Amino acid sequence: MSTEQTDRPTTDQKTAWSDRPTPTTAEEWLERAAEVSAILAVDAVERDRAGKTPYSEVQLLKDSGLVTLLGPVEHGGGGQTWETAYRVEREISKADGSIGQLLGYHYLWAWAVRFLGTPEQIAAVEELYTANRYFFGGAVNPRDKDLVITSDGDELVFNGRKTFSTGSKVSDLTVLEGVLEGTDKHIFAIVPSAQDGIVYGDDWDNIGQRLTESGSVRIENVRVSWDDAAGYVNREFRPLVYNTLNLPTIQLVFTNLYLGIAQGALETAAAYTRSTTRPWPYGGDNKDSAVDEWYILEAYGDLQSKLWAVEALVDRAGERISAILHGDREAVTARQRGEIAVLVAAAKQRAIDTGLEVSSRIFEVTGARATASSVGLDRFWRNLRTHSLHDPVAYKRREVGRYVLLDEIPEPTWYT
Amino acid sequence: MSTEQTDRPTTDQKTAWSDRPTPTTAEEWLERAAEVSAILAVDAVERDRAGKTPYSEVQLLKDSGLVTLLGPVEHGGGGQTWETAYRVEREISKADGSIGQLLGYHYLWAWAVRFLGTPEQIAAVEELYTANRYFFGGAVNPRDKDLVITSDGDELVFNGRKTFSTGSKVSDLTVLEGVLEGTDKHIFAIVPSAQDGIVYGDDWDNIGQRLTESGSVRIENVRVSWDDAAGYVNREFRPLVYNTLNLPTIQLVFTNLYLGIAQGALETAAAYTRSTTRPWPYGGDNKDSAVDEWYILEAYGDLQSKLWAVEALVDRAGERISAILHGDREAVTARQRGEIAVLVAAAKQRAIDTGLEVSSRIFEVTGARATASSVGLDRFWRNLRTHSLHDPVAYKRREVGRYVLLDEIPEPTWYT
Amino acid sequence: MSTEQTDRPTTDQKTAWSDRPTPTTAEEWLERAAEVSAILAVDAVERDRAGKTPYSEVQLLKDSGLVTLLGPVEHGGGGQTWETAYRVEREISKADGSIGQLLGYHYLWAWAVRFLGTPEQIAAVEELYTANRYFFGGAVNPRDKDLVITSDGDELVFNGRKTFSTGSKVSDLTVLEGVLEGTDKHIFAIVPSAQDGIVYGDDWDNIGQRLTESGSVRIENVRVSWDDAAGYVNREFRPLVYNTLNLPTIQLVFTNLYLGIAQGALETAAAYTRSTTRPWPYGGDNKDSAVDEWYILEAYGDLQSKLWAVEALVDRAGERISAILHGDREAVTARQRGEIAVLVAAAKQRAIDTGLEVSSRIFEVTGARATASSVGLDRFWRNLRTHSLHDPVAYKRREVGRYVLLDEIPEPTWYT
Amino acid sequence: MSTEQTDRPTTDQKTAWSDRPTPTTAEEWLERAAEVSAILAVDAVERDRAGKTPYSEVQLLKDSGLVTLLGPVEHGGGGQTWETAYRVEREISKADGSIGQLLGYHYLWAWAVRFLGTPEQIAAVEELYTANRYFFGGAVNPRDKDLVITSDGDELVFNGRKTFSTGSKVSDLTVLEGVLEGTDKHIFAIVPSAQDGIVYGDDWDNIGQRLTESGSVRIENVRVSWDDAAGYVNREFRPLVYNTLNLPTIQLVFTNLYLGIAQGALETAAAYTRSTTRPWPYGGDNKDSAVDEWYILEAYGDLQSKLWAVEALVDRAGERISAILHGDREAVTARQRGEIAVLVAAAKQRAIDTGLEVSSRIFEVTGARATASSVGLDRFWRNLRTHSLHDPVAYKRREVGRYVLLDEIPEPTWYT
Repeated sequence: MSTEQTDRPTTDQKTAWSDRPTPTTAEEWLERAAEVSAILAVDAVERDRAGKTPYSEVQLLKDSGLVTLLGPVEHGGGGQTWETAYRVEREISKADGSIGQLLGYHYLWAWAVRFLGTPEQIAAVEELYTANRYFFGGAVNPRDKDLVITSDGDELVFNGRKTFSTGSKVSDLTVLEGVLEGTDKHIFAIVPSAQDGIVYGDDWDNIGQRLTESGSVRIENVRVSWDDAAGYVNREFRPLVYNTLNLPTIQLVFTNLYLGIAQGALETAAAYTRSTTRPWPYGGDNKDSAVDEWYILEAYGDLQSKLWAVEALVDRAGERISAILHGDREAVTARQRGEIAVLVAAAKQRAIDTGLEVSSRIFEVTGARATASSVGLDRFWRNLRTHSLHDPVAYKRREVGRYVLLDEIPEPTWYT
Repeated sequence: MSTEQTDRPTTDQKTAWSDRPTPTTAEEWLERAAEVSAILAVDAVERDRAGKTPYSEVQLLKDSGLVTLLGPVEHGGGGQTWETAYRVEREISKADGSIGQLLGYHYLWAWAVRFLGTPEQIAAVEELYTANRYFFGGAVNPRDKDLVITSDGDELVFNGRKTFSTGSKVSDLTVLEGVLEGTDKHIFAIVPSAQDGIVYGDDWDNIGQRLTESGSVRIENVRVSWDDAAGYVNREFRPLVYNTLNLPTIQLVFTNLYLGIAQGALETAAAYTRSTTRPWPYGGDNKDSAVDEWYILEAYGDLQSKLWAVEALVDRAGERISAILHGDREAVTARQRGEIAVLVAAAKQRAIDTGLEVSSRIFEVTGARATASSVGLDRFWRNLRTHSLHDPVAYKRREVGRYVLLDEIPEPTWYT
Repeated sequence: MSTEQTDRPTTDQKTAWSDRPTPTTAEEWLERAAEVSAILAVDAVERDRAGKTPYSEVQLLKDSGLVTLLGPVEHGGGGQTWETAYRVEREISKADGSIGQLLGYHYLWAWAVRFLGTPEQIAAVEELYTANRYFFGGAVNPRDKDLVITSDGDELVFNGRKTFSTGSKVSDLTVLEGVLEGTDKHIFAIVPSAQDGIVYGDDWDNIGQRLTESGSVRIENVRVSWDDAAGYVNREFRPLVYNTLNLPTIQLVFTNLYLGIAQGALETAAAYTRSTTRPWPYGGDNKDSAVDEWYILEAYGDLQSKLWAVEALVDRAGERISAILHGDREAVTARQRGEIAVLVAAAKQRAIDTGLEVSSRIFEVTGARATASSVGLDRFWRNLRTHSLHDPVAYKRREVGRYVLLDEIPEPTWYT
Repeated sequence: MSTEQTDRPTTDQKTAWSDRPTPTTAEEWLERAAEVSAILAVDAVERDRAGKTPYSEVQLLKDSGLVTLLGPVEHGGGGQTWETAYRVEREISKADGSIGQLLGYHYLWAWAVRFLGTPEQIAAVEELYTANRYFFGGAVNPRDKDLVITSDGDELVFNGRKTFSTGSKVSDLTVLEGVLEGTDKHIFAIVPSAQDGIVYGDDWDNIGQRLTESGSVRIENVRVSWDDAAGYVNREFRPLVYNTLNLPTIQLVFTNLYLGIAQGALETAAAYTRSTTRPWPYGGDNKDSAVDEWYILEAYGDLQSKLWAVEALVDRAGERISAILHGDREAVTARQRGEIAVLVAAAKQRAIDTGLEVSSRIFEVTGARATASSVGLDRFWRNLRTHSLHDPVAYKRREVGRYVLLDEIPEPTWYT
């Protein structure tokens, strides 16, 4: 979908972005995100129905600078914190859950080198992606078998298949993960996405998050230098608790995605109710306007209150994990990691439960005609329903339960 | 969609139907409905995605005899009661909500002449549609302006437009409703669907119930004889409470549709969980099979219990209204009509609330891969969400509330 | 609490009962139950606060004939079915959950001999309790150790302790259960409650069901003839599936208790709202009367609809188990028993969930002043909350879940 | 209830308090509150059952310094903010909702002079109550008629009756509010509680918050100087938006009470589950310990997650209103006031809904024996249920709804 084919103001805006100064504060970045979100909202319904590859939307994320929000200032990045990254992701997710997911995952992958890498690797990767405004994808679905890595002189050779790889075709860089054959060494590396050995299945066809390009990927003899094996020095890895923060960090990426979708659902519904919903003419205290219907007011009040509670919890988790992520890598303890993981697990539950309620109940306050496909109000539920199954929320409840009852923190896994 | 183009066994079955004796008991009719439902289930997902006009599915309803379930035995009909009609509609709705809605509405329109007509009209219409296995549609959306009727000699001429007209193109007969110009006389009449004066907009494009052909219809100079004005004798109408039973009757058609969709959702999900869902390998009492996961068992137990409660209430309402509908037309009192309307209003709430919960929560017990478009598990939620907005359920709660608190029965309206 | 000390019309009524003919149909029995319920409602709040032993209330159950509802007609009993017994229990529970529980348990214990006994034992026990209008209690809490039984010549000697024994002091007959020392034979027997070897702890002090006399009991050398060992012939027991129907039967006793409490809560609240609740004067569409408040109407409509659904399911379960209980003892299959157990498990869940919601939300529609202790509106929640913990409802959900997913019926246990 | 009669460590502690330095930071104050809360928890159940007047508990609040948390440092007060006051109130409410309410209301009444008074009045009242550690009560229930004030020379004379007056007998100072006869001037004044003209009805007997001494009060010729009419200068009042902040401030006092009760419920239940609840032996994956039961873990995880979300929202509202309350009195705008009122309305809803769920569901994870009166686990639900009806939560939903849909802030009333 090229920007030329639509009415939305991206073209002019694109010109504009490069002329405008990079935001320097969290507030300015949030304003920037709101601008981008408004642009994405214009044709979100059509885009979802068409199911096209979001090349131009990712370009918008690059042009507006959002992709380098976390990148070093000296290379043109925003130098912002994760606290802001989460809010930006959430703002984008309001308009388009797919693009919000792509951006959130990008932030996570862009931080992979910080979770695992050496100072030299960090410096190199952050310069690379910031200076070029590169977009990250990943091929790391843990429920598949690991990729197989063989060592070939100074190089590592990756082979295998992953069922899901969000970003895929629209990414410039891909994060790979595998196990070195004959060992139990897990190795992460970052490689250019555009190479013959990375073959996308183009087979993502799901009921929601349709534009995330989350299809399968085949990895065939993709080579990286041993020097690029994240965190490896002399082919050995020295583990830190900090390495395992990727899980709570990405789980909170998910959570902000859900919250953003839910907020977008409520805002979109409210606009529809104000502009279009008709009052009911039969059998009650009949009103001149839908916005005076008691049941409509009560429902919006209920749903908004619930969302505000989720938002406060998600923000609290964001502040805390951000402080850890930007703090001393060596100092993070297993207990700190465990407590933030529990808080994130709680926030995730609330975002999912509340988001599903919001995205289903909005129809009751918009009315029968809001089910027209052209209104597209179902995309919020479909998007949230689809991604919120990533790992069973029941296990998240269990984790919080064990913490409450037994003061037990969760074992780090690929999902916690 | 012709039956030739698919793998499903309709063609053979069609031959079979005509060779098989017409069912004679409610149980046999329910078995017949289950057979038809199983056929419809085979390609329900593909049909929904294609959004094609359900000519062959309506033909299946005719071939299997379901369309004449309520028709007189002497003309080849089933001579069954509404209690059975509701169960049949529900059985079909399990497999395909759209076809269930078409059948339920057909039963209602086929009964329109009983609600309103003279004995002669009843005899004529029931013979006509039963002998020919005609399928009914209707153009009676009450939130639009009434059609305008002018009297021209012995004829009535209908003109106007309706936003929604379920059945439309797939129907043989259409029920029209209008107001005689210069009077406040409402007149119903049944006309052949295939005529130049009935022009379908073909503009139904909604997120659910996609095959119901519920688009707009324009009525241009459609003529009927004054003799066919339902219930009019010498151009006057003598009202009975029985005339107003169409509302609780159709509201219970809706309710059975919702319940059927919800039951179909749970059954479809359970089959998927059994066959495909994987147990979760991390962080709990890990099981070898998804069907041993505590949270999955508990969720199915919870949802099934809720559905059984709804089913019991819907059946109770069905038994009661069926007794009234098949009883003495002259004897029905406003109080009887009011009490059944309240019971139906209660059943409808429970079917909607429970059905929405079921159709959204099934994903939690089927898992992430069940969001593939090819699985099509979202159609239950989309179908239920779409139709359940027909009129605000909040007003149904209010009706029951006024009955409980004030012993007040609802005023008959187009929605109660 | 003697009837002389209160204003309630029991004294006159008592006279009246003996002058009035025994009801002969289910409808008449239900009317009788409604009369008794109305009498019990008069001072239910005071009785609950006083926590007195319900001698006079049990006398009322005897005088009105309700205790012999299931007893043989030839001995003066009602000869009714369990379907009616459940409804009668429910009707009494509306007014006073404690008395409803006592009556429901009485029916179960009165049927113990049918579950287990020989034809001769059945004839003897039914004559005994019916002719004398005896009231049953039981000392059979399965989570305690079994009573120890020793065989002493022609007699069995029971010893041990049970933490809970509903009925206790107010009962005439007590059902004992124990294991014959050195064997795994479980033996049930019925003994007179008033004997030195049965010592009541008088230690039931719980937040709800306060008048059920459910305290502990010590059994010291209580002797029964081997001839009274239920179902034993020549000191051997021939098991039937029918023996194990006591569990679904009592679980449905519980369920009707919960439903009755919930119905009583809603009716009591509605009467209060009508008579006493004031409309809210600030910040909305202000009304002259609380019964016109939208939120009050909607809440009553919602709660009533939910209760009707539970009632329909509970009635359905009652009809089915009643047919089995009054049918051929020898013919009952494990599958039949399992399916009714699953249905009862479902009904129980719905009664608990809905009942807790009703008994807590009624305050929102009665208002702040309805929290006065003299109004006593909290007793419904306290009663329901207390008894509904008898065994974990989560396991009931699991049972239904295994049935839905695996077509598995529950293993008979003391709780299923 | 004198401290001598109980085992709890208050006597020693009392000695201790005076020897210990006054806390100087928010953290230290919260630790102090936790200490006091732990003392109050020891006999909270017995105290509730006895329904005694909480003289010694109020003395504990004085001795520990909590009553002067908001008072000026120069007079021995804590000089803390409302943000901390809310947290302290919440901490106390965990152990005993009644005492938490008394303390929260005290903070509100102690601030009344800041809402309304002149700088001189503020200085005088704050010195008076801080230096003496006086405890405040109030006689301001707005649903009663206002007190009647007559002007008599330099004095105002108050007469009338209020149905509820939290604090009453245990207070040192009482806030009165009335209307000057023949005008529409509302006048607030603070008077000593111990005087002949203030007559307590001692008639608070409700199902919850039993120790709040919230009974009726008769005011007979209570005289105050015109100089003490809060905010009046030359018998005229110059209104500020700041005057009307008392409503969101007290609504957030309520909200913290609810949250504290709910947190106390969950913590108390968790301790019981750990120490006492038995695993279930039948029909599942049976565990050795209740804390390994899946349903118990899931329930705690669910409830804790919900409470954390409420807490985050309540804290956010507390931070915001605290900033306004301690900021420039003259600068507060109606819009600021309205927005914080909406946020508080949202927080209140969440605290009530979640708190009721928590305080009812804890029984499911503690088990049947936790219903013993001696455990007293029902007091949380009774306390929350009772106070949460202060004004209809449905109207709070409506307020938030009008803000969301119409960007409308609520009109200041006695309840908003």
